[in-house]
Amino acid sequence: MEFHYPNGKPFRKPAEKKLSGKEKSYSHGKRGMTLEEDLNETNDYYVASGQAVIHKKPVPVQIVTVDYPKRSAAVIKEAYFKQASTTDYNGVYNGYYIDFEAKETRNKTSFPLQNFHQHQLDHMEQVTKQKGIAFVIIRFSSTEDIYLMPYKQLRIFWNRMQKGGRKSMTKEEVEENSYAIPLGLHPRIDYLKIIDHLIKSNDEQD
Amino acid sequence: MEFHYPNGKPFRKPAEKKLSGKEKSYSHGKRGMTLEEDLNETNDYYVASGQAVIHKKPVPVQIVTVDYPKRSAAVIKEAYFKQASTTDYNGVYNGYYIDFEAKETRNKTSFPLQNFHQHQLDHMEQVTKQKGIAFVIIRFSSTEDIYLMPYKQLRIFWNRMQKGGRKSMTKEEVEENSYAIPLGLHPRIDYLKIIDHLIKSNDEQD
Repeated sequence: MEFHYPNGKPFRKPAEKKLSGKEKSYSHGKRGMTLEEDLNETNDYYVASGQAVIHKKPVPVQIVTVDYPKRSAAVIKEAYFKQASTTDYNGVYNGYYIDFEAKETRNKTSFPLQNFHQHQLDHMEQVTKQKGIAFVIIRFSSTEDIYLMPYKQLRIFWNRMQKGGRKSMTKEEVEENSYAIPLGLHPRIDYLKIIDHLIKSNDEQD
Repeated sequence: MEFHYPNGKPFRKPAEKKLSGKEKSYSHGKRGMTLEEDLNETNDYYVASGQAVIHKKPVPVQIVTVDYPKRSAAVIKEAYFKQASTTDYNGVYNGYYIDFEAKETRNKTSFPLQNFHQHQLDHMEQVTKQKGIAFVIIRFSSTEDIYLMPYKQLRIFWNRMQKGGRKSMTKEEVEENSYAIPLGLHPRIDYLKIIDHLIKSNDEQD
């Protein structure tokens, strides 16, 4: 089955074109895709297949100077990166509000908490209070292990750090407090399956 | 009661400081607030009071050149404005996904549909299919009349235009197919009240 983007462009499995006969397995690392690229393709796939409407927000920029040349587009001549006040991704999935941050590390044995910021944790807390689903997707890039950690679990390690504890989560802690997401062909990071599971367990608790 | 932003800064009613004893009524036009500024303050108020978590997305920018001077922040030296692929505002309110675009016109008798784009309509359609709540907030700046028009109503006028009909909605059409939002002190544009009403009427239809 072929999916189409809303603009009519067909959705192609990016790997199809590049895999030659010799490469039997899908080698992710070799192709050098970042977590962000994988998630963008996943989200494009979800939109194209009508499963969810989740997008990455634009990078926040403080614009200082703009040139307006005659007969051509405005050019930003001076601008600075701003720290985001929320998480990077949000959207809607079958009536549920979805909100997450995605980060990767080259560390092999632990995930540094400095990848997140206090205001992002606060934002996820607010989202949770509004009955939204907040989480982080983290990747250990050396092994390509990807995990979805619900906000409530992340908060435990965050609080430990704030009380003077370690500034990272060990890989074992991540494994015990997250859901592993197997890397797929398309979508590459099928995190909605985990969300289904989260929703189901929440419903059972009610 | 005083509300606080998540960063601990107290939420101040912006008008309080500026209104002198002589000015009895809140004069919006004089202070030159744009619809965007009013909505940002409204959303800040909603977050500070724990009512909803709704934010404006950053302006999308295509970054071409970045300078990394020693010992100071990276400077974007060349960048261009990109057209947004979604609406400008989204977030979560009591478990409901909220998604909207906000536009104002100086026209007195009609609202030009060119304020919106095809892909924004498509985005709102997708959001509606995912059981999100999609709408537009429009303002006639000369009279300061503000309306919330649900996506489904907007789509009717959009389709009429695409079939060769008029490229705007008359003010009467807006009035008949929208909910007027009275301008308040704080929040300035209390659109959540209309959302409550929309949710209630949807529930009654089910």
